[in-house]
Amino acid sequence: MTEFGFIDYIANLFAHIPTNDFEGIGDDCAILPLENGESLVFTADLLTEQVHFLRHATSAYEIGRKSLAVNLSDVAAMGVRPIATLLSIALPSDLPKGWAKEFMEGYHSLSDEFSVALIGGDTTRSDSGITINVTAIGRGSSANIKRRSDAQSGDVIFVTGELGASGSGLQDLLARKFDTPQAVAHRNPQPQVTEGIWLGAHREVHAMMDLSDGLASDLRHILRRSKVGAEINTELIPIAEGSDLQTALCGGEDYKLLFTVDPFTADPLIRNFHSHFGTPIYPIGRITEGNKLQWLRNGSPIETDWQGFTHF
Amino acid sequence: MTEFGFIDYIANLFAHIPTNDFEGIGDDCAILPLENGESLVFTADLLTEQVHFLRHATSAYEIGRKSLAVNLSDVAAMGVRPIATLLSIALPSDLPKGWAKEFMEGYHSLSDEFSVALIGGDTTRSDSGITINVTAIGRGSSANIKRRSDAQSGDVIFVTGELGASGSGLQDLLARKFDTPQAVAHRNPQPQVTEGIWLGAHREVHAMMDLSDGLASDLRHILRRSKVGAEINTELIPIAEGSDLQTALCGGEDYKLLFTVDPFTADPLIRNFHSHFGTPIYPIGRITEGNKLQWLRNGSPIETDWQGFTHF
Repeated sequence: MTEFGFIDYIANLFAHIPTNDFEGIGDDCAILPLENGESLVFTADLLTEQVHFLRHATSAYEIGRKSLAVNLSDVAAMGVRPIATLLSIALPSDLPKGWAKEFMEGYHSLSDEFSVALIGGDTTRSDSGITINVTAIGRGSSANIKRRSDAQSGDVIFVTGELGASGSGLQDLLARKFDTPQAVAHRNPQPQVTEGIWLGAHREVHAMMDLSDGLASDLRHILRRSKVGAEINTELIPIAEGSDLQTALCGGEDYKLLFTVDPFTADPLIRNFHSHFGTPIYPIGRITEGNKLQWLRNGSPIETDWQGFTHF
Repeated sequence: MTEFGFIDYIANLFAHIPTNDFEGIGDDCAILPLENGESLVFTADLLTEQVHFLRHATSAYEIGRKSLAVNLSDVAAMGVRPIATLLSIALPSDLPKGWAKEFMEGYHSLSDEFSVALIGGDTTRSDSGITINVTAIGRGSSANIKRRSDAQSGDVIFVTGELGASGSGLQDLLARKFDTPQAVAHRNPQPQVTEGIWLGAHREVHAMMDLSDGLASDLRHILRRSKVGAEINTELIPIAEGSDLQTALCGGEDYKLLFTVDPFTADPLIRNFHSHFGTPIYPIGRITEGNKLQWLRNGSPIETDWQGFTHF
């Protein structure tokens, strides 16, 4: 069973249990509307040694920072502010003295940057590798929440930054090249918290999600949930320095935002974003009717079997 | 550094970050008061293979059920109703086919029993053992929330059931006696969700928590946070069949509730609880001034070095 097959199995198994007001599985976060016009959002990510990070290739500080970053990115992708996390860590007894403290310093530095409280969690012993679970909670106006299911035919598709650095960095790490700029980028993702909140407040932004498994995989979630297709102009993909088109589309963990915008307001949004953040957003294609993801090169269809990273 | 020393270190490291309205680390759950007179509560527990369960001694169904049970117990200990969970699981590739589905069936059975929604989580590969993290969310009237910090001198101390079965069952499992009633109890804890909600609605119940590490350890949290002491009448401890006093006090994972009650309303509460649930609550001692935990046998002090289970 694939990862997404298993998630569908779980969703079906639980379908008859009351939702208790939650909008659950299927987006970057689950959503709980409150009575005051706000909503809370919830997400969890589990990181395991060897699969998500290599102890010899990543400092404890970086692992602490990254384990939070990937969750803050999910909250930002909903268009709201992260307010708190719960952190669970299982630590083997053979860790160097000070590892846990250095991990917490990394976790703390990013918590501090975005004023995210640490409200609970669990610490325990592991008989095998390091395992980390972070649950993040976000809060914001219900009107600002962005879902994967709200893309509309004709929308312009944007990403908030260059893609592929993390994927190329992972290739470098696996080749034991630890100090390339791409390897450093892979170990130190910066969640676009401020950008996500800003985009959340803009009504012309329709669907949004974060890029964790790679555009070629992640975009399909928006298409499936919005019941639309897309054309992507591959020559418009902003490829990070030292990376390449396939890695930019299929490598994971860039943690940029992917979103769709009403076509009549796309140009002003480009200008507003740039004047607010000093960085561009990149139009890369268009939402279409139907359900097909079509890659284009200079306007002509190209056939590929691009997929993103899968965890199983 | 001990488990609780590390938690103190973390709490200090994060002390300067805004709480964002949460009442955080230090109780069974963190608390978020809402504007409508309700509060949400949050807790997380991480279970790792070998440390929290033995794959050869516990079925996938039981592990699924237990990983939820320990979290529902924490929510119940706050006096409110569990409404949702996020489940993260890391699974090694050598698991028997069907293990993940059987795990989910166990998780589902207990979710269904208490109408708890599954709203998200993460599934990933593990290069070592099975790891499970559950984050549980509860909701109820803010007036019903029970904290560890609200015990008052003179309160009668109660537990909601017999103690020691789980601890004796763990000893059986480690001796490869898998089918004793105690071993079955250890693998199948029943969280006292209905009892916790009922006690939450009673104003005469002051402090409450669940018994996860053993009374000798857990009670100290109430004493420390309430700045009180206690006298425990060891002859009043309800010892589960097949267990003994030391295991009842120092063994973990019974998941009964420990709570303190205004002495003038203790007798009617005993009667009300019994008429509502058909089972007794057990008075085992009294909260005192000072900060000492004193064990008594037939009224006379006894000296022991009883401690509960620690995870480091």
